[in-house]
Amino acid sequence: MNTPWWLTPCKPVNHEISMAAAGRQHQLTKPAGSLGQLEALAVQLAGLQGRLKPRVDQLWIAIFAGDHGVVAEGVSAYPQAVTGQMLHNFVSGGAAISVLARQLGAQLDVVDLGTVTPMLNLPGVRHLELGAGTANFATGAAMTDSQGLKALQAGRDSVLRALAAGSELFIGGEMGIGNTTSASAVACALLDCPASHLTGPGTGLDAAGVSHKAQVIDRALAFHDGLLDDPLQTLFRLGGFEIAALTGAYVACAQQGIVALVDGFICTVAAMVAVRLNPQCREWLVFAHRGAEQGHRHVLESLQAQPLLDLGLRLGEGSGAALAVPLMRLACDLHGQMATFAEAAVADRPA
Amino acid sequence: MNTPWWLTPCKPVNHEISMAAAGRQHQLTKPAGSLGQLEALAVQLAGLQGRLKPRVDQLWIAIFAGDHGVVAEGVSAYPQAVTGQMLHNFVSGGAAISVLARQLGAQLDVVDLGTVTPMLNLPGVRHLELGAGTANFATGAAMTDSQGLKALQAGRDSVLRALAAGSELFIGGEMGIGNTTSASAVACALLDCPASHLTGPGTGLDAAGVSHKAQVIDRALAFHDGLLDDPLQTLFRLGGFEIAALTGAYVACAQQGIVALVDGFICTVAAMVAVRLNPQCREWLVFAHRGAEQGHRHVLESLQAQPLLDLGLRLGEGSGAALAVPLMRLACDLHGQMATFAEAAVADRPA
Repeated sequence: MNTPWWLTPCKPVNHEISMAAAGRQHQLTKPAGSLGQLEALAVQLAGLQGRLKPRVDQLWIAIFAGDHGVVAEGVSAYPQAVTGQMLHNFVSGGAAISVLARQLGAQLDVVDLGTVTPMLNLPGVRHLELGAGTANFATGAAMTDSQGLKALQAGRDSVLRALAAGSELFIGGEMGIGNTTSASAVACALLDCPASHLTGPGTGLDAAGVSHKAQVIDRALAFHDGLLDDPLQTLFRLGGFEIAALTGAYVACAQQGIVALVDGFICTVAAMVAVRLNPQCREWLVFAHRGAEQGHRHVLESLQAQPLLDLGLRLGEGSGAALAVPLMRLACDLHGQMATFAEAAVADRPA
Repeated sequence: MNTPWWLTPCKPVNHEISMAAAGRQHQLTKPAGSLGQLEALAVQLAGLQGRLKPRVDQLWIAIFAGDHGVVAEGVSAYPQAVTGQMLHNFVSGGAAISVLARQLGAQLDVVDLGTVTPMLNLPGVRHLELGAGTANFATGAAMTDSQGLKALQAGRDSVLRALAAGSELFIGGEMGIGNTTSASAVACALLDCPASHLTGPGTGLDAAGVSHKAQVIDRALAFHDGLLDDPLQTLFRLGGFEIAALTGAYVACAQQGIVALVDGFICTVAAMVAVRLNPQCREWLVFAHRGAEQGHRHVLESLQAQPLLDLGLRLGEGSGAALAVPLMRLACDLHGQMATFAEAAVADRPA
C-alpha cells in the first residue's frame, strides 16, 4: 500500500538562510531585538522561503464552507441557511473577507464543500457537493471516510492552485454555521479535556447556550469513546468538511513550500490536526491572532504558537489572518530595506 | 494674561455621528462584535472625524529628535552621537521609520530640536537649535521655560503643517539617546511612584545598568522634590525637547481635530503630560501598541488605553505606531465597505 499523500515529508527549512537572515537583523540600524516578534518572523520566513529577503506580496485566500449536522442539536445562534447566503456574499464583495482580500490584493478562492442549501450554483464558487452538510456527530460519524478524504484533497487542491498562481502566502478561512461546536469537539478529543474547557459562545450564544453546547459535545465524545485515538478518525467523526479541507491545506502548504497563515479557533484546530498527522508541517504555520473564543487560547498554547494579533476577533472567514498580513509584509520590508550600521555610518554600541 | 494655547479647548467629538456609526456596525454581515477592537475603533474614528465612514489614508509622521544631558550619568548603552547619526539615517531612507513611511505613503517631517552634534545641517531636517541637548536633570532643570515653550510650539507647528497637507492621522515619533531615562522620570513624577516601577533596559541595558538608571532617576526626583506639582514644570525639569514637542503635538492634534496615533513608552509619557495639561485631548488619542519597556504597561493603564498591538517592540521613532496604521485603515475599510444584512440578503439572527 502506498503512503497516503498527507504523510509524505514536508519541505525542509533552509537553516543556512535562517542563520544569514538572523545575522542581517543584527546589523540593521536599531537596537538588537527592538522590533520584537517581527524580527523572528522575518528570520522564519527567510528560512522557509529560502531567500535572505523574504516577501509575502502574492497572497492567496481560500475560504472553505460547509454545513454541520450537529446544528440539529440547537448549538448555533444563526439559522443554517446563512452558510449558503454568506457564500453569495463572499463572491459579491460584501463580506469582511471580500473587503480585506480586495484591499490586500489577494486572490480569493471560494470552495463550497457541501451545504444544506439545495442546488446552490454561484458564479465564482467551486461547488464540490460532498453532501448536504455533515451528519450530526452527536449521533454518528460526521462524515464517511470517502467524504473526509475528498475534503482533505479539496484543501490540497486549493494549495496547488495557489502554487500555480505564484502565491507566497496561503490563508485558509472557513464558513459554516455550527463549526465552533465541531472544532471544540475535535480539540477536546485531541487534547483529552472536557467540553467546558474549550467551548465558547461562537457567533453569539448566551451562557445557557454555551452550557447546552458543551453538553452536546460531552455527549458526542462519550458516544464516540474508544474510536478517537487516531487524529484522522477524530477529524472524520467530529469535524466538518471545511475543517478537513483546512487540515489538508495546511499539510499541503508544508509539503509544497508555501507559508500558511492560520486564522482563528476553527483554523487553529484544523492546524492541530495537521500537526498530529504530519508534525513537520508545524514549521510552516504562522499564527495570525488570538481570538475571543476561549478554546482558541488553549489550542494555541498546545501548539506553542505566538500569534501576532490579539484584538478579540471571532468572525472567521480568514479575516483575522488577513488583518495580520500587513504586519508580515512590513516585517519583510523592514528586514529587506533597512540600512545596516555600516551602510548608514551609525555607531553600534560596544559589543 | 491670555490663556496659553495648550489650555484652549479641544475639538468636541461628534456624538451623533458616533451613534450612527455604531448603528451601521450592527447592520454589517457579521455577528455583532465579531471584529472586536476594530469595531470600536471605527466608531471612535467616525465620531472624531465627523463622518460616518472615516478614513486614515493621508498619514503624517513627525519625528522629533533631541539629546539628553542626563546621559552624562551613564544611563544609555549607545553613544550620544547616535542621535545626530540617526537624523541622517531618517532622511536617507535607511531607518525603520523611513522604510515604514515609504510603504505606508506617509509624509515624514523630521524635526531636530537640539543635539550634541555641532553645526548639524541635514537636507530634509528642520534644525531648531534649542540647545546642545537638555541639561542633566540629575543636577538641575533639563530645560529652561523658554526652551520648553519653544519645544511645545515645535510640536504644534508640525501638527499645523500636517493639517495644511490634508492629513487624516498624525503619528509622532522620537529619537534621543537617553530618552527612556527622561520619560521614566517624568512618569514617576506624574504617577508618584519610585523609579524601579517604571525603569527598564531602554535600548539594551543589562540588569546592573537598569538598577543604576533607576538610582539616577530616584536621585533626580529627590533633587526636584517639591517642584514637580505642575505637569508643565515636571516636563521642563525632567523631560526632553522631543518629549515636550510630542506633548505639544498631542494637545494641538486634539485642538485642530486630527486623530493622533501614539507610539511607545516615550510617546505615551508625552501623551500623559498632554492629558494632564488638557484632559479633553484624551479622546483624540489612539494607542498603537504595548511595548517591551516595563514602564509602558503602567503608563498605558493610567490612561485606560487599549493598544492595538503587543509585539514586544522597543525601537521608538514612531515605528510601532506606523506598524498599526494598516489595522486602522482596514478597520475603516471594513466599516465603510462591508454589505449590510439587508443589502446582502443574509439572515440576521433573531433579535
